[in-house]
Amino acid sequence: MQFKLPKTPAVYVEGKDFKLADVDPDDITPFKRRPDDKADAEPRLIELRKRLSVLQELLYAEHKRSLLIVLQAMDTGGKDGAIENLLTGVNPAGVQVATFKAPSKEELDHDFLWRVHAHAPKQGHITVFNRSHYEDVLITRVHGLIDEKTCQQHYDDINNFEQLLRHSGTRILKFFLHISKEEQAQRLQARLDDPAKNWKFDPNDLKERAYWDDYQAAYEAALRNCSSEKAPWFVVPANHKWARDLAITEIVVAALEDMNPQPPEPDFDVKAQVIE
Amino acid sequence: MQFKLPKTPAVYVEGKDFKLADVDPDDITPFKRRPDDKADAEPRLIELRKRLSVLQELLYAEHKRSLLIVLQAMDTGGKDGAIENLLTGVNPAGVQVATFKAPSKEELDHDFLWRVHAHAPKQGHITVFNRSHYEDVLITRVHGLIDEKTCQQHYDDINNFEQLLRHSGTRILKFFLHISKEEQAQRLQARLDDPAKNWKFDPNDLKERAYWDDYQAAYEAALRNCSSEKAPWFVVPANHKWARDLAITEIVVAALEDMNPQPPEPDFDVKAQVIE
Repeated sequence: MQFKLPKTPAVYVEGKDFKLADVDPDDITPFKRRPDDKADAEPRLIELRKRLSVLQELLYAEHKRSLLIVLQAMDTGGKDGAIENLLTGVNPAGVQVATFKAPSKEELDHDFLWRVHAHAPKQGHITVFNRSHYEDVLITRVHGLIDEKTCQQHYDDINNFEQLLRHSGTRILKFFLHISKEEQAQRLQARLDDPAKNWKFDPNDLKERAYWDDYQAAYEAALRNCSSEKAPWFVVPANHKWARDLAITEIVVAALEDMNPQPPEPDFDVKAQVIE
Repeated sequence: MQFKLPKTPAVYVEGKDFKLADVDPDDITPFKRRPDDKADAEPRLIELRKRLSVLQELLYAEHKRSLLIVLQAMDTGGKDGAIENLLTGVNPAGVQVATFKAPSKEELDHDFLWRVHAHAPKQGHITVFNRSHYEDVLITRVHGLIDEKTCQQHYDDINNFEQLLRHSGTRILKFFLHISKEEQAQRLQARLDDPAKNWKFDPNDLKERAYWDDYQAAYEAALRNCSSEKAPWFVVPANHKWARDLAITEIVVAALEDMNPQPPEPDFDVKAQVIE
């Protein structure tokens, strides 16, 4: 790994033998012994957020490098919640969230990375992808819209694309929010039971749920083929939201600390300036 | 080569031993024996243009693949003239010309392929790049703005990028319009002597002319590193404009013939349609 990984329940995907089933979506080790110890996590989260806000400003001032955070998950996996939690207190002027839905006709007239490249982070910025180019090796694969050969080409194209971004100074962190099938059932039910959450429910989610095992296999293959020290995938146990958020924030802050952004030296004589 | 190359003075760049100096900018073989035989080339050019117009319409109707034509040259090399000549009579609705000048501040805040990717051809379209991503391994290298390591990364990124486009059905043809230093002197002088051409003259061109040998070396290195059967570079002898234009048109038409675009089968019963 390019930076020292903090201790979290998140698992860095290393090598072709990685098995998604080996990661327990309920895991909260080493955070706490009891899953309901949420309150004890708060002080650390607040501390991390303060530091994240400082680091983001330094990255912005330096204006040389950038950070790309990719979030993927099964439906109800918690992408929106995780993004909101991570970016709380960070200056929105230096942060973008790009949400990728089903591609438009215009987008389908280009290669699958065309619309994604357009949203790559600018120098000095942090960009979060809510879904991403990985959808093109997930939903398309599960539903047989691409064959095996095209899927392999997509893995290559993705790895090359992420290398291009790295060459221009972009650090990349990718998180798969890993929930269990039972947890998804509960969250979907909650969206039906609570009128205030009804708008989040999409009957289509039930159809996709039927492909649960196929999606897990597609995720496993994508993670195996597209994770490296320079563009790592992390599987984040996400049944417990507080543990999910703490893990992501720990890793993002550790990566930014490692980048160690520095504001540029003034190109004028600071002491000689007179303000009248 | 993916397609049967027509006989023209243009040279396909193959292998790391390619030498730019081996290509004579005055060459018109096998077109004609005398460089002033321009008139004899006209009938063939007219024939090719008709065919190009038909092939472009078929490509547009098929709506599955696309063609990217990259043009590079030294100043006064004839890019504008070559583009005008090639696209005469082609339906502009299916053709785009993207001209790349010095990058903007916004563009410099991204990787060097960001602005180029945005202009990649849509399905069914022909796009011509007037200058291109190759400027980032030419002018930047000549003026020492990038080091050797970055230049190699750029070659890799370029090759990967062009592979991505090919994966999505884009055929790529790249032409270097090769003029001699003496020819450039004459063309620059003509821009000074003829008031109607004054607007084309840029005093900065004289400064760049002083780097002639460095540019030739940078071109040679770029061509060696980024030419393959699937994304070929052609060096087009370009001292004689008619031979340059005929060579490019021959190759573009041959590539499109090889692509052999087919309109989709009607998804309705043609005979059953009644127009009242």
